[in-house]
Amino acid sequence: MVDSNSAHLALLREELARRGLDGFVVPRADEHQGEHVPFSAERLAWVTGFTGSAGTAVILAARAALFVDGRYTLQGATETMGTGIEIVHVTERQFDDWLVEALSEDMRLGYDPRLHTGEGRKRLEKVCKRATAHLVPTDGNPADAVWQNRPAPPLALVVAHTNEFTGRSSEDKRKTIGSTLAKKKCDAAVITLPDSLAWLLNLRGGDVPHTPLPLSFAILSRDGTVALFIDRRKLSPGLDRHLGKDVTIQAPDGLGPTLRALGEAGKTVRADPATASAWVLDELAEGGAIVVEGTDPCLRPKAIKNETELSGTRAAHRRDGVAVTRFLYWLDREAASGALTEIAAADHLEALRRQGKHFRDLSFPTVSGAGANGAIVHYRVTPESNRRLESGSLYLVDSGAQYLDGTTDITRTVAIGSPSEEMRDRFTRVLKGHIALATARFPVGTRGSQLDTLARLALWKVGLDYDHGTGHGVGSYLSVHEGPQRISKRGGDAALEPNMIVSNEPGYYKAEGYGIRIENLVAVKTLGKPEGGERELLGFKTLTRAPIDRTLIDTTLLDDSEVAWLDAYHAEVRKTLTPLLDAKTAAWLTAATAPLR
Amino acid sequence: MVDSNSAHLALLREELARRGLDGFVVPRADEHQGEHVPFSAERLAWVTGFTGSAGTAVILAARAALFVDGRYTLQGATETMGTGIEIVHVTERQFDDWLVEALSEDMRLGYDPRLHTGEGRKRLEKVCKRATAHLVPTDGNPADAVWQNRPAPPLALVVAHTNEFTGRSSEDKRKTIGSTLAKKKCDAAVITLPDSLAWLLNLRGGDVPHTPLPLSFAILSRDGTVALFIDRRKLSPGLDRHLGKDVTIQAPDGLGPTLRALGEAGKTVRADPATASAWVLDELAEGGAIVVEGTDPCLRPKAIKNETELSGTRAAHRRDGVAVTRFLYWLDREAASGALTEIAAADHLEALRRQGKHFRDLSFPTVSGAGANGAIVHYRVTPESNRRLESGSLYLVDSGAQYLDGTTDITRTVAIGSPSEEMRDRFTRVLKGHIALATARFPVGTRGSQLDTLARLALWKVGLDYDHGTGHGVGSYLSVHEGPQRISKRGGDAALEPNMIVSNEPGYYKAEGYGIRIENLVAVKTLGKPEGGERELLGFKTLTRAPIDRTLIDTTLLDDSEVAWLDAYHAEVRKTLTPLLDAKTAAWLTAATAPLR
Repeated sequence: MVDSNSAHLALLREELARRGLDGFVVPRADEHQGEHVPFSAERLAWVTGFTGSAGTAVILAARAALFVDGRYTLQGATETMGTGIEIVHVTERQFDDWLVEALSEDMRLGYDPRLHTGEGRKRLEKVCKRATAHLVPTDGNPADAVWQNRPAPPLALVVAHTNEFTGRSSEDKRKTIGSTLAKKKCDAAVITLPDSLAWLLNLRGGDVPHTPLPLSFAILSRDGTVALFIDRRKLSPGLDRHLGKDVTIQAPDGLGPTLRALGEAGKTVRADPATASAWVLDELAEGGAIVVEGTDPCLRPKAIKNETELSGTRAAHRRDGVAVTRFLYWLDREAASGALTEIAAADHLEALRRQGKHFRDLSFPTVSGAGANGAIVHYRVTPESNRRLESGSLYLVDSGAQYLDGTTDITRTVAIGSPSEEMRDRFTRVLKGHIALATARFPVGTRGSQLDTLARLALWKVGLDYDHGTGHGVGSYLSVHEGPQRISKRGGDAALEPNMIVSNEPGYYKAEGYGIRIENLVAVKTLGKPEGGERELLGFKTLTRAPIDRTLIDTTLLDDSEVAWLDAYHAEVRKTLTPLLDAKTAAWLTAATAPLR
Repeated sequence: MVDSNSAHLALLREELARRGLDGFVVPRADEHQGEHVPFSAERLAWVTGFTGSAGTAVILAARAALFVDGRYTLQGATETMGTGIEIVHVTERQFDDWLVEALSEDMRLGYDPRLHTGEGRKRLEKVCKRATAHLVPTDGNPADAVWQNRPAPPLALVVAHTNEFTGRSSEDKRKTIGSTLAKKKCDAAVITLPDSLAWLLNLRGGDVPHTPLPLSFAILSRDGTVALFIDRRKLSPGLDRHLGKDVTIQAPDGLGPTLRALGEAGKTVRADPATASAWVLDELAEGGAIVVEGTDPCLRPKAIKNETELSGTRAAHRRDGVAVTRFLYWLDREAASGALTEIAAADHLEALRRQGKHFRDLSFPTVSGAGANGAIVHYRVTPESNRRLESGSLYLVDSGAQYLDGTTDITRTVAIGSPSEEMRDRFTRVLKGHIALATARFPVGTRGSQLDTLARLALWKVGLDYDHGTGHGVGSYLSVHEGPQRISKRGGDAALEPNMIVSNEPGYYKAEGYGIRIENLVAVKTLGKPEGGERELLGFKTLTRAPIDRTLIDTTLLDDSEVAWLDAYHAEVRKTLTPLLDAKTAAWLTAATAPLR
């Protein structure tokens, strides 16, 4: 690993020198700027060795740095070992400050305009200005020029996602958003996020692992017609009929000319500078278009699930709950031996999930963390790291599946043998945070960032916290992370609206000790106006169905309403799953969900 | 009033027509973009009649709108009555959308670049682009051209604020910030906020009501020297000596040429696009300066009070607490008659405050709201609105003072006669929110926006809320509203740091019924790392000393820890103030602060 990273870094530096560049920015991004990147675009991993889902490297001739968040500092250091790359925790030392210090006057810093958003480029421009350096767009990506055996761009089949699962025709979605564009005096919008496009056209693909994305671009016109830029070889037979006459297919390299043509025709085009690449914005602007900056118009309607999607996700969660419950029962029997490994556990859970109807894939690589590995927030087990589940330790499993009718994501933390008092204290505090969020009542218009603290208070009280967000939006047989809502201390999120799905996942991590996280998915629901009240309230309804380890709960730390919540949740789990389980598992579940007191 | 507003509006429209403008934006701002505006810059009030502290009007030939937040919709409608100006609640209908709809192609919308920040202008540019209209800077302000008898710009005396109160020399402040600029590769910073300048140079003035601001501009160089742009007539005798040789005085109209000269010399200059006017940024850019956008470098150090400032504010709060306590005792005796008015009450409170050492002014016009007037969040009593304090109603008084050693701001809500059950329920919920914030423990790095919800939970539970922030920073014998910290659901605030001062002021307002607000000032304090904990915690220490009306508390709604907080707070108030009170007031205070149960 190490040798090969160093070699790749050297190759890139040679290529930069050939191009007269003093440095180059390598984001973990493809031209769609989504979270999911095909192997062909894993340039950050190829150059640095770092395989995490978020990060940016800056490669200069004599220095290099990898900027990652708190989830990835450990992993980044391990994976880049021997390359000389500095690991910089973005919240400790700002990207901008590092660059201003590292760049000197008139240096030429390269960037690939297809891999940076409009906003991202603005930030780079400011930094270069401060450092009196030059920001230089590259023609093609320098890493690609030296990446031997780079995987080909994916060509996975694109299929229709039918009305049975979507509950709403593409035509209806297109017409509705088109008329919103018209109202805002826009002629068209560029759709660059593959999950927006999948939702808009009721399509699913397979270009990236674990998320059924069809990597492609689209232009939606105010009349509801769409130009879809996609390799025709990807289209499943009969897909044209599903798309209908209002969707025209064009080759991917037709996008640039079409964007320019929109400009030449004097069109007003909406694009999202937070997600569209600088290249897209440049093509529009150079053609002469009036670019109206605004969020991707699919984001909000995609996040608000309709009745079909909600009943689909409930069904998917029942199936998922069956698999997880069978897994937990199996773990209860098998773990005592001390022989079980993280990989064996993850594989068994996957095998159980595969038996569920409509199962298509996991929704992300399972986080299967025993003992100290559980403290690595986005741990991914490898044969080298694979630990046994030992008595007296905690086992954390964060996993989910893609079912045709819904996407799941659940984390359970399980005591292997007898947990320590400290483990029970910490677990109970995390549970208190989880319950505080699950039972929150808040006025219409409230954003998730206003609720994030509720999940942390019980930990803060004793000087503890966790370094990740509390919740993310979840798609409908689509991305397991979606916006515009989230529950995080970062602001800038959209208001929570009825029928949005979001995760509730506080945690606690003791470095080199253990990890705890309790995650359910919840849907935002309307509670109405209480008697004597003035504001319409919202709350959450829990979708996930699986027991929470009672042996990890210190009931003396819970108040009556918290105990009542857990007992009611467990009763609901029992009631939903028992008819779907064999007798032995059902009996185990009954014990596992017995009232706390 | 009404006739005169309509007349002013007509005069402005004529002037716009003469200048070939189809519209004009009138913000409530002067060229310093601060909250406080001298009479000479009260153009919004002159044009529209609206006298609130925040708002923007857009005047078109046939339409006009005033954009205000929730505090000001009622007041805006009343004050602009008869002018045909639409009142738009900014959170209900966005400024941008209104403008895009109201502007038509090629219309020319004027703006005065000295009255809009760089960021504000960017927003106007985007809107005009969407509407395919033109944003046109005006040469001088069109309103000034037709405003007969416009007040002259203020010329209040500027005096030294001595080390006894500041605890830190200007030289030390200038050198420290200068070296920070040097580290960030900046040659200089433009200081456009008068309170930043007052803090930096240890000066105080009197150019706006209630806040001792010296309206002026400064340029701070990396070596700690300052060019101060101010009318020499404002300088008190001997001030040059106080300022020292490193501060040079220049005439106000020297600012533009100096900004251009910085550019011509190729300097890198820091300016804050959130607070510096578009005009300042233009002058820099047109001269050729490298403009580094960054927050005003005085904001954070000004907000973190030193020991001298903290002990000063504690002394000021003792004096203020004596005045408020004497007032509350007086109210208790006098209000029963039913003859007391809002104006008489406010005047009496002011008279009591004026007896305190170091008193210089109120820190803002007293909000003295009886009954339904208390529900108007930023109510300012006039002879026309003046109500009597009637039995069975609530009286809300939000007031503060400028003492040389500290700025105070306190709100108390008092029952006149017997309060209703509903009033006691609401008051107790507001108190629960106040206590939740006062007792919060949170990790270093937490922002006030993460704590705002704590103050609302007890109201949300029953479908109630309040439409204002929960807390604002407070200066040291300076502005009663200062950043970069605040406690609000809006994000974008800076982390709370030890020794910052912030208000804690949840409320509840029943339209046309009554208003409730409980406000204390608190200082952020270090709590250290709890035993067994991992994070350094912060909390608040309450500075304000005055009783909270026990007759409005429904103790059945409070838990033990909440009762304990109130009793401990009241014990502290009693202990601090009793030695400073006459015997009768002290006896009253003892009863008013008796334990709840």
